[in-house]
Amino acid sequence: MKSILVTLDSNYLKPLKVMLKSLFINNPNEEFDIYLMHSSIKEEELEDLDRFIEAEGGRLKIVQINDSYFEDAPTLLHYTKAMYYRLLAFKFLPEELDRILYLDPDILVINPIDELYNMDIDNYLYAAAYHNIITIKRINRIRLNAYDIKEYYNSGVLLMNLKLQRETISEEEIFDFVKNNRSKLIMPDQDIINSLYSKKIKSIDEKLYNYDARYYSYYKITSNGKCDMDYVINNTVFIHFCGKKKPWKKSYSGKFHSLYKHYEKLAMNTKY
Amino acid sequence: MKSILVTLDSNYLKPLKVMLKSLFINNPNEEFDIYLMHSSIKEEELEDLDRFIEAEGGRLKIVQINDSYFEDAPTLLHYTKAMYYRLLAFKFLPEELDRILYLDPDILVINPIDELYNMDIDNYLYAAAYHNIITIKRINRIRLNAYDIKEYYNSGVLLMNLKLQRETISEEEIFDFVKNNRSKLIMPDQDIINSLYSKKIKSIDEKLYNYDARYYSYYKITSNGKCDMDYVINNTVFIHFCGKKKPWKKSYSGKFHSLYKHYEKLAMNTKY
Repeated sequence: MKSILVTLDSNYLKPLKVMLKSLFINNPNEEFDIYLMHSSIKEEELEDLDRFIEAEGGRLKIVQINDSYFEDAPTLLHYTKAMYYRLLAFKFLPEELDRILYLDPDILVINPIDELYNMDIDNYLYAAAYHNIITIKRINRIRLNAYDIKEYYNSGVLLMNLKLQRETISEEEIFDFVKNNRSKLIMPDQDIINSLYSKKIKSIDEKLYNYDARYYSYYKITSNGKCDMDYVINNTVFIHFCGKKKPWKKSYSGKFHSLYKHYEKLAMNTKY
Repeated sequence: MKSILVTLDSNYLKPLKVMLKSLFINNPNEEFDIYLMHSSIKEEELEDLDRFIEAEGGRLKIVQINDSYFEDAPTLLHYTKAMYYRLLAFKFLPEELDRILYLDPDILVINPIDELYNMDIDNYLYAAAYHNIITIKRINRIRLNAYDIKEYYNSGVLLMNLKLQRETISEEEIFDFVKNNRSKLIMPDQDIINSLYSKKIKSIDEKLYNYDARYYSYYKITSNGKCDMDYVINNTVFIHFCGKKKPWKKSYSGKFHSLYKHYEKLAMNTKY
């Protein structure tokens, strides 16, 4: 049994189905509990998702967040309080869950997840990958330099050590950090994880576990050709469609466009 | 029951498996007889292919051609006598077969074939698509202009009316044509079909049945955006990787590279 966490609103239900379909297809012998943290998704949408997941042999576990919980939490101009869901998921998930794999909905899962899922993370809050593109690293280090971070981890794929999080993560510390750094926060949850917990993140290979779909050529060149299309298709677990251009949008173009649309077709043609 | 024809040598056995895997996956409720016309594929390779096809619920039917059959047929510098297999398949296939679908091995089958397969071709020798790229059309019309062809059909996907072919196609006419046009023939079997039988070919939509993987942008622009990635993935039956650059080669790059490698992985991971 493996536990997956997603936190999203209605706009991402279609990409979520594509992500889940790819997860199920490429992990055929696993059983999945899909935890969905949300505040505003409609009842009929949840029922539809429930049937979709059940048709694939998984179970949907709904974690409805009452927005009053975050009444006193500081907010940011362009973000809803949902930015805290990923950070504080450990407070809302069942006590008996020791670990969970958080996945963004703009991801394709194209190989088995078990090696990552079963990884030893005893002394870490998270396992995550940082994107080793020079410009991304430099910009984010400069932006958040007061907080002594070495790498800037991407929070789209997060293996969470819920047990250790319950023991050590403080809600107040997070809220205080947001209050004191409002002007600096661009991607708030990711910035918070990096600024507060960087040293407690186990680093995993981005080419396997958080492959940024925009950088095919970069990965290929910097690996001396090793990380070519053949390698990605046979080894990469998560292809992450980072950035503003999304593969479900009309104007998209990219190396993994045809593959994304392939899984989208399979998801949309699922009978349930 | 549907009959598929392929004619190839050992070099194309791996792409053939990819093509067949995509055919089987996207036509799950069909039964297939796969006719393989060849002269030199080794016994162990044939056995391997037989087991691969059987694992998918299909049947391999081997049509071994004795090269002495074509002893007196004219040859061309860079082509073996295998160039006649596709043209004269009707002579070697079982008498009771009325139609068969010939497919090149550099094809992905990404949607059901039944609408094409069951098409009315009563008064035609073939159904095929021509590639409507202006330069291709012009060059081939000029090159073969003595033979009054309107369109230049691609012979990578050919639905064959074997009954009518048996009644009307003459081996001698083909051999004479080759003798008299040696210097003009670049893609000999395709040139022969176009020059001799153009008016007996039923034209089918290239965007559905012979989508040239090199021309994504061309198809999209000339269809006013209709034939985008979404359309292709959901409607196109055969993506044809025409030209010298093949998706199973290291140096390949193209819009359908990730999709091709996906099916290649599925083919290579088939257990049999």
